[in-house]
Amino acid sequence: MKDHIGVGIIGFGTVGMGTVRILKENRELIHERTGVYLNVRKIADLDIETDRGISVDPAILTRDANALIADPGVDVVVELIGGYEPAATFIKEALKQGKYVVTANKALLATRGWELFEAAHENGANIAFEASVGGGIPILRSVREGLCANHLQSIHGILNGTANYILTQMSDAGMDFEEALKEAQRKGYAEADPSFDVDGIDAAHKIAILSTMAFGVRVPFDAISVRGIRDIRQLDVLHAHELGLVIKLLAVGQWQDGELEIRVHPVMIPESHMLAKVKGVYNAIHVIGDFVGSTLYYGKGAGMLPTGSAVVSDIISIARQLVRENTYDIPPLGYPLPAFRDAVIRDASKVRGAYYLRMKTVDRPGVLSRISGILGENGISLASVIQKGEGEEPVAIVMVTHETTRRQIDEALKTIDQLDVVMEPTLALHIELDLK
Amino acid sequence: MKDHIGVGIIGFGTVGMGTVRILKENRELIHERTGVYLNVRKIADLDIETDRGISVDPAILTRDANALIADPGVDVVVELIGGYEPAATFIKEALKQGKYVVTANKALLATRGWELFEAAHENGANIAFEASVGGGIPILRSVREGLCANHLQSIHGILNGTANYILTQMSDAGMDFEEALKEAQRKGYAEADPSFDVDGIDAAHKIAILSTMAFGVRVPFDAISVRGIRDIRQLDVLHAHELGLVIKLLAVGQWQDGELEIRVHPVMIPESHMLAKVKGVYNAIHVIGDFVGSTLYYGKGAGMLPTGSAVVSDIISIARQLVRENTYDIPPLGYPLPAFRDAVIRDASKVRGAYYLRMKTVDRPGVLSRISGILGENGISLASVIQKGEGEEPVAIVMVTHETTRRQIDEALKTIDQLDVVMEPTLALHIELDLK
Repeated sequence: MKDHIGVGIIGFGTVGMGTVRILKENRELIHERTGVYLNVRKIADLDIETDRGISVDPAILTRDANALIADPGVDVVVELIGGYEPAATFIKEALKQGKYVVTANKALLATRGWELFEAAHENGANIAFEASVGGGIPILRSVREGLCANHLQSIHGILNGTANYILTQMSDAGMDFEEALKEAQRKGYAEADPSFDVDGIDAAHKIAILSTMAFGVRVPFDAISVRGIRDIRQLDVLHAHELGLVIKLLAVGQWQDGELEIRVHPVMIPESHMLAKVKGVYNAIHVIGDFVGSTLYYGKGAGMLPTGSAVVSDIISIARQLVRENTYDIPPLGYPLPAFRDAVIRDASKVRGAYYLRMKTVDRPGVLSRISGILGENGISLASVIQKGEGEEPVAIVMVTHETTRRQIDEALKTIDQLDVVMEPTLALHIELDLK
Repeated sequence: MKDHIGVGIIGFGTVGMGTVRILKENRELIHERTGVYLNVRKIADLDIETDRGISVDPAILTRDANALIADPGVDVVVELIGGYEPAATFIKEALKQGKYVVTANKALLATRGWELFEAAHENGANIAFEASVGGGIPILRSVREGLCANHLQSIHGILNGTANYILTQMSDAGMDFEEALKEAQRKGYAEADPSFDVDGIDAAHKIAILSTMAFGVRVPFDAISVRGIRDIRQLDVLHAHELGLVIKLLAVGQWQDGELEIRVHPVMIPESHMLAKVKGVYNAIHVIGDFVGSTLYYGKGAGMLPTGSAVVSDIISIARQLVRENTYDIPPLGYPLPAFRDAVIRDASKVRGAYYLRMKTVDRPGVLSRISGILGENGISLASVIQKGEGEEPVAIVMVTHETTRRQIDEALKTIDQLDVVMEPTLALHIELDLK
């Protein structure tokens, strides 16, 4: 049995450094577990000068990713540069050469994953991507293998640590959105341009990958309904608390009447739910299967070392097979590629739920009755109304509706937000009361 | 490629029925995922008359487990009778015949697992046992494969759903232990003889298996320190709540100075910890690795269908390999058998922590000073003292100590409990304040 496996790493940024550090520091442990030494044979990056604080033989550093891929000593190619190009080209080239690929590239997998899966399939190679969703949490493995006896029914995930950190600071430390975002940036949790995180795009990439695997269907990325958390204010967090609820940026994939409902948006959930307890940069994923019932997976969703842990777990799985010359027995998405059909995506306007509405209006008699009249005309009935800040303008009016659809809410708000007494666009948040 | 795998099930009780039901109802799904049909070829049980509400061809029912094992059409033998014998003999016989075995038998694995692992190793067969810990939660797979890049440092688990149900009812519904136990029995969560569950033995079996796999060491079952929850009273739950704590039956395995600390006992943990939120019959396991940090896995820890889900996930993993004639690339315990050495088990008296002490004394001046004097003589200092029920006897005295060791507590209580003013044995509960 072969007892050395050569690893080539493309991208020596944060996750690349974490991966190299783990392969180095836990080299003996991995050998003890697998009988195999994982050798970092080459690292490719445009910047091979900066001292990253990890001692690496300069001879293995290269600017030439293609030479790394072609190196016969590299058995596994690890793509950690992110983005679409040249990442996709590198991955496809490695697969074409029959090499196994490990990647953390959620954006690429979510939007152009099919190119990669097909390239793997055609070349008898394979691609592993545990690190692309949930950082160090072994969620893909759990869904693909641990729950494989089940029809999966729903996934509710807190999949973006930055957004969760901001919402946690708003709710536990009383910060406003901008303040919490600045703190997240200061701590290195948020980028200078935070839009991927706070606008829900990163979480959408992850729920696309997770839903593809869990439900065995192709998910067209553009069909995902995505809203971010920029409109959430301190008063919304406070109102949520008064209602026994917490605001979380949830990524949801679930079957409804044979259609796949797939959405990312800030949602109010009961304080007592396990997902409500997930604080700071942690992620958690709640998965329901027809026989296993509710399960939940929790851990750090990002960061050099948790993400590196997931990358290395994939390298180890591959190494265990390569040294035995086993064929890959579990397809990357859990199902064989030809089994996939396009999901019928449920129109986001059909999503049912109670809604939290927060309006800012002038302080004039009759405003409330005009607004509730319009809601009524749209078939929306109210469970409760709170009016705050009487005497000062704008007045905040908060309403909680009975169950309705997003379509009815949007229709009603189209009219309400055009009233001259309404001073800014109304915020409407879905309330998930029946979260299992 | 072979496209049918024959499954033989020994034991047609609760988990057996769940397993058969899942194999039947999700037959097409499993085929879609794996390209393989899993056929229940034979079911062996002493009782083949009782109608279990699952339609099964009577021709596959047998009282002869040995014939089932020897049947050339049976590729995978699933042992679900529980207990030590004849379960161990059946498993070893199947392994001797080179068959793969799936079992949920935690008592057998925890106490005599080595016989089975060696039999598997010697015969080039394998044994899978996801269902033995955490019911439907894919915890063994996560530890063995998902976290395999990490040195694991600690496991804190709520591993017994019955005990957790009782503690939840005591804390959320104000029940006393006996009342909650009776309710658990009425609901089918607890056996007529509940000692395995409430005395911590079942949780000890599970932490033994989990620690063996996570830490790569042999765990002598008798070395585990085990205490149950029978002594917990309603007033303890109330005091815990006043202190911002919750009482949970925790199973702990963790490294301390190169020794393995392994214990099952009721512990007070901060209300804000994820483990504190685990209610009713749910289980959860908090695992810390050197690179991944904190992770947590949550789900139903028992029951026909969640446990069946884990059994079937093991059968599927085996089937995926058998049809490709792959050799098993991941050893059952994550490490190859020869890598295992005996763990040095840390003496339970060394366990450090703050302690909650609840005493019942006569109502007489000077009692408190005598008791705190004895604690002081044993090097134990007090963080707070609460005295309740003045005027009536016995008086409840509750003390919270600063950090100390179990040895000091036990020494002090040996003296205190012999005082004539102390009316019943003192309850001492570990407080895990630094739970990560």
